[in-house]
Amino acid sequence: MKLYDYFRSSAAYRVRIALNLKGLAPEREFIPLRRNVQRSHDYLSVNPQGLVPVLLTDEGDTLTQSLAIIEWLDETHPTPPLLPGSPSARARVRSLALAVACEIHPLNNLRVLNYLTGTLGVTPAQKDGWYRYWCDVGLEAIETRLARESETGRFCHGDTPTLADICLVPQLANARRLAVDLGAYPTLQRIEAECLALPAFADAAPAKQPDAE
Amino acid sequence: MKLYDYFRSSAAYRVRIALNLKGLAPEREFIPLRRNVQRSHDYLSVNPQGLVPVLLTDEGDTLTQSLAIIEWLDETHPTPPLLPGSPSARARVRSLALAVACEIHPLNNLRVLNYLTGTLGVTPAQKDGWYRYWCDVGLEAIETRLARESETGRFCHGDTPTLADICLVPQLANARRLAVDLGAYPTLQRIEAECLALPAFADAAPAKQPDAE
Repeated sequence: MKLYDYFRSSAAYRVRIALNLKGLAPEREFIPLRRNVQRSHDYLSVNPQGLVPVLLTDEGDTLTQSLAIIEWLDETHPTPPLLPGSPSARARVRSLALAVACEIHPLNNLRVLNYLTGTLGVTPAQKDGWYRYWCDVGLEAIETRLARESETGRFCHGDTPTLADICLVPQLANARRLAVDLGAYPTLQRIEAECLALPAFADAAPAKQPDAE
Repeated sequence: MKLYDYFRSSAAYRVRIALNLKGLAPEREFIPLRRNVQRSHDYLSVNPQGLVPVLLTDEGDTLTQSLAIIEWLDETHPTPPLLPGSPSARARVRSLALAVACEIHPLNNLRVLNYLTGTLGVTPAQKDGWYRYWCDVGLEAIETRLARESETGRFCHGDTPTLADICLVPQLANARRLAVDLGAYPTLQRIEAECLALPAFADAAPAKQPDAE
């Protein structure tokens, strides 16, 4: 197994956490997105989307998209489970994960921010405003759900980490880096602290990676 | 079962296709996003994200996020399956679905386009350029994969429709509506035609819905 990784990618961070929770430590190659290595011919032949993470399996399959990779990990290495057992609980965990992966992260990743400043010529303040706006809209909805739903426990769903926590923690790290005020999200901060007390989460943090700048 | 729906929502369109493939016809309530009904207190109590689709189950669960809803449908109503059997094939289908749901659709939905023109004051031409740019970046990567991968069949994966087709068809419909030139995507167009020949896809189209304007 081999992971194409980049320390600052939130999507790669999710996969690092999942691998750690499963006790797996694949070979890693680091693709420095800021230096545009992901647009090189070599890397595009691995992933035409030019994105990280990519997981090459021992069977020779090339897996892309962090949530698809994590579902694959959970199906092929079931212990500990990253999704609960019942369909309705699985739907809840997936919907929380997707509320990060489809509503917040796509609007705030590097290539989108580059388009705003480069092609559209928005000011740095407008770019920061965009980042904070979509972060707040998304986090507020997740905070509301987690605070009112009885399935919320020590973690987003019950008392063990799931795919929802795996998506939440990298998003909060990213928000902190961009100086978003997280004061309005006490439930998210509480769950983040629970997660970061676990080595699987703490060891996956961007600053701990070999390619960290 | 009850679906909160809106004819023009790509995410709701995905769920309509999945329900049709499963032979399910739940009660529906239409939330007209353009009239901001989704920000009403009543609807926010159903879904704090203020988004469609939402599926209320017969057990009283409120399911959000189209991909989580469709995975739930596939787990609770397994015939016909919307995901293949093997973990690596499931990962391929999910990654194609997420390449639409995480890389294209979030950048091009109504609230994002409204932010561009309203808050950032970009011109209509710049807004259209943004739409086409993210559509092309995303569709080009998917076309490349589908054209070169041997698992591609009549549909995105093999010869029966899956979650990947369910995400692709609404995205292509949206691209056509915004006058994106799809000439560079022959594989996507071929698969779209296969899908639209099936009543489950054709009957879910926006123009066929009772709330279509």
